[in-house]
Amino acid sequence: MSKFIKKVSKTIGLAPGSLVYVGEKELKKPRISIIDYDQENFQEKEVKQVEECFPFKESTTITWINIDGIHDTDIISRIGKHFDVHHLILEDIVNTSQRPKIEESEKYIFIVLKMLYFDEKEDETKAEQVSIILGSNCIISFQEREGDVFNPIRERIRNNKGRIRKSGADYLAYVLLDAIVDNYFIILEKIGEKIEGMEDELVAHPTPENLQTIQNLKRDMIFLRKSVWPLREIISGLQRTDSDLIQDSTAIYMRDLHDHTIQVIDTIESLRDMVSGMLDIYMSSISNKMNEVMKVLTIIATIFIPITFVAGIYGMNFDPSISKLNMPELGWPFGYIFAWGIMIMITIGMVTYFKKKRWL
Amino acid sequence: MSKFIKKVSKTIGLAPGSLVYVGEKELKKPRISIIDYDQENFQEKEVKQVEECFPFKESTTITWINIDGIHDTDIISRIGKHFDVHHLILEDIVNTSQRPKIEESEKYIFIVLKMLYFDEKEDETKAEQVSIILGSNCIISFQEREGDVFNPIRERIRNNKGRIRKSGADYLAYVLLDAIVDNYFIILEKIGEKIEGMEDELVAHPTPENLQTIQNLKRDMIFLRKSVWPLREIISGLQRTDSDLIQDSTAIYMRDLHDHTIQVIDTIESLRDMVSGMLDIYMSSISNKMNEVMKVLTIIATIFIPITFVAGIYGMNFDPSISKLNMPELGWPFGYIFAWGIMIMITIGMVTYFKKKRWL
Amino acid sequence: MSKFIKKVSKTIGLAPGSLVYVGEKELKKPRISIIDYDQENFQEKEVKQVEECFPFKESTTITWINIDGIHDTDIISRIGKHFDVHHLILEDIVNTSQRPKIEESEKYIFIVLKMLYFDEKEDETKAEQVSIILGSNCIISFQEREGDVFNPIRERIRNNKGRIRKSGADYLAYVLLDAIVDNYFIILEKIGEKIEGMEDELVAHPTPENLQTIQNLKRDMIFLRKSVWPLREIISGLQRTDSDLIQDSTAIYMRDLHDHTIQVIDTIESLRDMVSGMLDIYMSSISNKMNEVMKVLTIIATIFIPITFVAGIYGMNFDPSISKLNMPELGWPFGYIFAWGIMIMITIGMVTYFKKKRWL
Amino acid sequence: MSKFIKKVSKTIGLAPGSLVYVGEKELKKPRISIIDYDQENFQEKEVKQVEECFPFKESTTITWINIDGIHDTDIISRIGKHFDVHHLILEDIVNTSQRPKIEESEKYIFIVLKMLYFDEKEDETKAEQVSIILGSNCIISFQEREGDVFNPIRERIRNNKGRIRKSGADYLAYVLLDAIVDNYFIILEKIGEKIEGMEDELVAHPTPENLQTIQNLKRDMIFLRKSVWPLREIISGLQRTDSDLIQDSTAIYMRDLHDHTIQVIDTIESLRDMVSGMLDIYMSSISNKMNEVMKVLTIIATIFIPITFVAGIYGMNFDPSISKLNMPELGWPFGYIFAWGIMIMITIGMVTYFKKKRWL
Amino acid sequence: MSKFIKKVSKTIGLAPGSLVYVGEKELKKPRISIIDYDQENFQEKEVKQVEECFPFKESTTITWINIDGIHDTDIISRIGKHFDVHHLILEDIVNTSQRPKIEESEKYIFIVLKMLYFDEKEDETKAEQVSIILGSNCIISFQEREGDVFNPIRERIRNNKGRIRKSGADYLAYVLLDAIVDNYFIILEKIGEKIEGMEDELVAHPTPENLQTIQNLKRDMIFLRKSVWPLREIISGLQRTDSDLIQDSTAIYMRDLHDHTIQVIDTIESLRDMVSGMLDIYMSSISNKMNEVMKVLTIIATIFIPITFVAGIYGMNFDPSISKLNMPELGWPFGYIFAWGIMIMITIGMVTYFKKKRWL
Repeated sequence: MSKFIKKVSKTIGLAPGSLVYVGEKELKKPRISIIDYDQENFQEKEVKQVEECFPFKESTTITWINIDGIHDTDIISRIGKHFDVHHLILEDIVNTSQRPKIEESEKYIFIVLKMLYFDEKEDETKAEQVSIILGSNCIISFQEREGDVFNPIRERIRNNKGRIRKSGADYLAYVLLDAIVDNYFIILEKIGEKIEGMEDELVAHPTPENLQTIQNLKRDMIFLRKSVWPLREIISGLQRTDSDLIQDSTAIYMRDLHDHTIQVIDTIESLRDMVSGMLDIYMSSISNKMNEVMKVLTIIATIFIPITFVAGIYGMNFDPSISKLNMPELGWPFGYIFAWGIMIMITIGMVTYFKKKRWL
Repeated sequence: MSKFIKKVSKTIGLAPGSLVYVGEKELKKPRISIIDYDQENFQEKEVKQVEECFPFKESTTITWINIDGIHDTDIISRIGKHFDVHHLILEDIVNTSQRPKIEESEKYIFIVLKMLYFDEKEDETKAEQVSIILGSNCIISFQEREGDVFNPIRERIRNNKGRIRKSGADYLAYVLLDAIVDNYFIILEKIGEKIEGMEDELVAHPTPENLQTIQNLKRDMIFLRKSVWPLREIISGLQRTDSDLIQDSTAIYMRDLHDHTIQVIDTIESLRDMVSGMLDIYMSSISNKMNEVMKVLTIIATIFIPITFVAGIYGMNFDPSISKLNMPELGWPFGYIFAWGIMIMITIGMVTYFKKKRWL
Repeated sequence: MSKFIKKVSKTIGLAPGSLVYVGEKELKKPRISIIDYDQENFQEKEVKQVEECFPFKESTTITWINIDGIHDTDIISRIGKHFDVHHLILEDIVNTSQRPKIEESEKYIFIVLKMLYFDEKEDETKAEQVSIILGSNCIISFQEREGDVFNPIRERIRNNKGRIRKSGADYLAYVLLDAIVDNYFIILEKIGEKIEGMEDELVAHPTPENLQTIQNLKRDMIFLRKSVWPLREIISGLQRTDSDLIQDSTAIYMRDLHDHTIQVIDTIESLRDMVSGMLDIYMSSISNKMNEVMKVLTIIATIFIPITFVAGIYGMNFDPSISKLNMPELGWPFGYIFAWGIMIMITIGMVTYFKKKRWL
Repeated sequence: MSKFIKKVSKTIGLAPGSLVYVGEKELKKPRISIIDYDQENFQEKEVKQVEECFPFKESTTITWINIDGIHDTDIISRIGKHFDVHHLILEDIVNTSQRPKIEESEKYIFIVLKMLYFDEKEDETKAEQVSIILGSNCIISFQEREGDVFNPIRERIRNNKGRIRKSGADYLAYVLLDAIVDNYFIILEKIGEKIEGMEDELVAHPTPENLQTIQNLKRDMIFLRKSVWPLREIISGLQRTDSDLIQDSTAIYMRDLHDHTIQVIDTIESLRDMVSGMLDIYMSSISNKMNEVMKVLTIIATIFIPITFVAGIYGMNFDPSISKLNMPELGWPFGYIFAWGIMIMITIGMVTYFKKKRWL
Repeated sequence: MSKFIKKVSKTIGLAPGSLVYVGEKELKKPRISIIDYDQENFQEKEVKQVEECFPFKESTTITWINIDGIHDTDIISRIGKHFDVHHLILEDIVNTSQRPKIEESEKYIFIVLKMLYFDEKEDETKAEQVSIILGSNCIISFQEREGDVFNPIRERIRNNKGRIRKSGADYLAYVLLDAIVDNYFIILEKIGEKIEGMEDELVAHPTPENLQTIQNLKRDMIFLRKSVWPLREIISGLQRTDSDLIQDSTAIYMRDLHDHTIQVIDTIESLRDMVSGMLDIYMSSISNKMNEVMKVLTIIATIFIPITFVAGIYGMNFDPSISKLNMPELGWPFGYIFAWGIMIMITIGMVTYFKKKRWL
């Protein structure tokens, strides 16, 4: 549940724009790394003090400042002041329960979205908030923790692969968003496999534990949906924007990204459809098991109850010596065999009936 | 149910614009408090007579008149007359079953919405109607009862914290709305925790009482939805308005508020999804319990019914002395042990069968 | 069912515009009443012949002609001819299975909608068709039978209460529509109470009869929805109209009416949500009962089947005198008590097991 | 199923515009009838050769050519050539699995839609495709088989009833469409009655056969929906068209037709809602029956199992002569009555318990 | 599941526009065939090297280059370079998990969509990706494997049938799309028949295996929907386009194609409706079976349990010689017959009760 509603109580009653980190407190100091490049030059460094980033603001090269860890609101606030970012934007960066959105101003475009990752330990899909500020020659990205989704991009910049070094900051923003969306597919693949395995198990051996797993999958899907759906509006916003920050040549990439996002959403909807049918399968499967149990009981009971009655009859204590009408069978030499005969006949009759009814 | 449909019978047949309070009668006299401020000055007082507010109408400072308790329609009507509010608006203020809405006129913007609070005693989410009239230099707010949601705002004004004292009445309106929306998150958190606890209980120990609780949660969700959905239109209305009462600088705050509202709605929809699946889980859980009960019955019955039959056989009164074919086992020295042998073999056979079928 | 589809077979094959009354034949003659008023004058009368209304057409005062009973198609047709109403409109007036709609022409606005009332005898919500023709200085209203929803309006006109006598025919139209919409709330309150009572009963004591009641409620909701939804379009049509027949000053009243209509629709949707969940509650409740029945059976059976077996054992006729191995217990002095001991131990064991499983 | 997907395999791989009739082959020759009229003149004849229709193309009177039977693609193709109809339109006429649609060109408006009829023999709703080509002075209509829906229209033309003889070809087109839509109401009435009867039966005496009937009703509703929904777009298309073929005076009739179509769709949706709830009622009803069965079993079992145990006790062969502790009851003079006493007490106890639990 | 989410992990982290084939590796070399024609000339050949296609680029005749097999990304890339296709488009061609879409540029229109075929071996509907590049005088089509859907088109070009040789490349594109859409109907027919057979089986003899089949059908429907829905947008895009590549005369064909696509979608929705109801039918059918089983058990048990009790009574060992009150029946001459009488009466009573309850 905590996935849906982060404790926001802390921020209640504060003036709008107050920077309060609502995620779990991280112990480590935020890590600030800078990559500065153009077609010829490349520079990469990690800085201790946020102020070391500031000189890059004026450079004509593309600068990518990445901050891993947003719990130190002081750093955020100093960056915000230097790069002239609205304090409500800063609030959104540290409020990790923020809904994905895009916010445009004259000087920058602000994008906040969710990066998904799979927590193997808790067997659960989790989300990390990623904020991207796209300025004219620079990108500032904020992540909740260190991740490796952006590493291949760094590698590509270092090795001057593809068009990344030849393009502007908007292309870098596209590449970052593309990496995040591509990552969604990996998560969806994992969930897809989980669902597939689950379904086979449900049909074969339903257990009460499945109920909990189905429930978790459902929550995962609700959570995924909530995280990814707004992305479509964001990418659409980037496509429609009149901002000078997005060059025309990047438009086709944005359209491609838009297609991918719709594909992610389509897949989520498909998975949702499958998960939502799981409880029905579970119920049907349980019903089948119960039916089988009932059949066994019925077969045993309907065969043995009548023949036990027959045995009960000849266990009665009427005395043949009082009257010939009193249990004459007891006096017959073949009485015992006669009784067995009746019982065997009843059994055969019942089994035939069950066969006819296809219960055996 | 009464939550959905307040007794409106009282107002039927009356001329439109007749002021009739449809809520529960409150005994206490309405409490009228005034806060008047600008960047330098601050004045706060509580008045007995509504007429004491009237001088503030002309002042250039920002005036916030708050009325706790709207059952005294006379006060409402006198305020309405002085501040030139349309009588249909006054009717909306006292009709606490009003749907949240926004109404614009040249002189003021009227907003009516629901403040949610959790009634611990009745373990139920309840709503109070809050009406806000935004004039050029003044805000008049109406609440059904005294609450503490606005107290932090009063505190901020008193202490001149944030930008509130530097901004106009429209910013104050935003701050009031923001406080109400923030409060929704607290309610949603509470309901979220309730749902979470409920779900675990449903899977572990479903009881018939849960049925009632699920039902109440469902009603709560329907109620929440009805209270919060129209809010989106209201905030959109405030964003799109051409009214001079909303300054351009407030636009970004309204956009932020809009985002929060959508987040509230998203969360309500997620919770709704979870609640709507609860009955299914309950049913599955009950089904599981029943299945277990059935299995125990079946195991006991299918083991004992056949061996009871065996005991029945040897309880028959056929006399071995009449014929050697009559129950020769009775004459065997090991007859009794032979009978036990058969019974034990049947038992072992059955248990093996159940093990194979995974029923044990 | 007849509520959804009135017998329209009568009209099939006729030329469009043929006046055929499709409702149940009423025996009484239609009642025609006229109210004519302006700010100073007031005149009210009941006429026998429809022609007596015609002089009012030319008067500058507001004239409200109300016809109770529309089975006399001749009267309708004569009114239509005199007031120059299109014959398709006349067809709509008498065709009581008409969907609520608005039709504008240069000379008049035609509105047809449903008035709901609760038939106590048949315990069912029913609808009556009300048609309103709004001309420049006159209103002609058609009702299927005499009703009292419009009486308070007549009273207000008579007593010159509110603004009704000061306003035009369009305000009167608004007042009539408002009366009908207000009446919806009364019906919804009644249904709401019915649903509330029903839900409590379902959880406590579900009976097969409930199935029928739920079914009726569902039909009622489908019926209500069908009757009320189109109303929103009608009121929107009145708000957006460019017609001179609606004055600007009436706009705010129409907006208020629009709000009320949306509130009615919201409430219907909420009630629908609750009704649609009822069958699930019923099923769950039935399931609970069944579960309880099963538990009792299982407890009784699993306790007595084993101990009956024990009794069966000692009812066997093996003769201890043949061999010491044959039922030596029969020869023990404490044999009987020993047998009871086993049986009591089995019982205690079972009860303990059930307690552990929380079945007792 | 064949209702949804007609065998279209025949047409696969052919060039677009190839005329292939996909319905069932009819043996009879198509019947071609011509009605030619204006306000004064009227002429009606049946022709053998399609060429006999061609002279009417040039006449200034209104000509209605009706072709019953579309399996003779040669006739269709000759008409198409003479009246200058696009070959794709001709393909649509003979392809009876066509979705209802409207196609406008300069010279004509082409409408294809479904006429419903109830096949009493197979107890199923079926559809026939009707195509209408509206030219400036002529209507060509195509039907799959001879029907009587258009007969009243012919009668009206013959007798010069209503405005039909005074109006143009567009009014005739409206009248034809109106006849088809009116016919929908008759079908819906029939289905409505069927559903009503079904529901009562489901609650009272559910049988496994009902499952099939519900399934058929569901398919019928899906089929109806598919046939009628597109009609709304068609009529809207006719209302919005700029074509000279539709005169302004026909607009109000088209609006009326539009209203009727929406009413048909509303009714279908209502019926769909009811049908979709039927399976739930069936399940509930079956559940109720099962519950009753279970109760009888439980009552019988829980009364007789304990008292059979008592009888079993006194059937044990412990010998009172060995020890006074061995079944002393057997030695009591009132032993038998004592045993009966116990058994009667158990029975009374159980019955009381069931009464308290409301199972009896 | 793999149907929904193709392994895209391979492409993660690569620069956008990198050509990576994500389908299953095919061993065979791609097959490149060229058809070049105008009204008089026709030429058809199969080439080994992709470069052999290049001369056709300049010709004024219509050229259709078809590539079967897209795993050789080198070929794709060489074609792309020569025909000046954007590298993102090339990426879409080889990424077989691409969502159907249309992409317009000045020089060409790119369409990617799914061709469906039924894999008899795995009893599953599968999809193959088809990409079409429409240039001014040429069409390049890419298929995953050799198929025969386009063969009839080749035949028509060879034999100069229909208008294909007289029309431009846009008409050829239409014909290709039409062939693919027509093919959907064949698949839908097959699935329709499968569903029909399934439904009958479900009602008659539900087996646990059906659960798996229903599940597969559901996945098929989700898959079909995902593959076909976007097609509507594609065809709409082709209809609305301002591109010079689509001539006005082709518009009517595109409209026809649009109609067919909507019909495909309608049919998919209808099938979906039917499949989604299947689990309910299965559950109902299982419920019916269980009910029948329960009835047999109940009837057998409720008849034999009481009469077994009677037999048990007379198996008690009370001694009539101790007291006349002790089982006097044992002393009666007709005691045994009396006992049978009681038992027969109980049986008759029970059977009568069951008959009355309609259980027999």
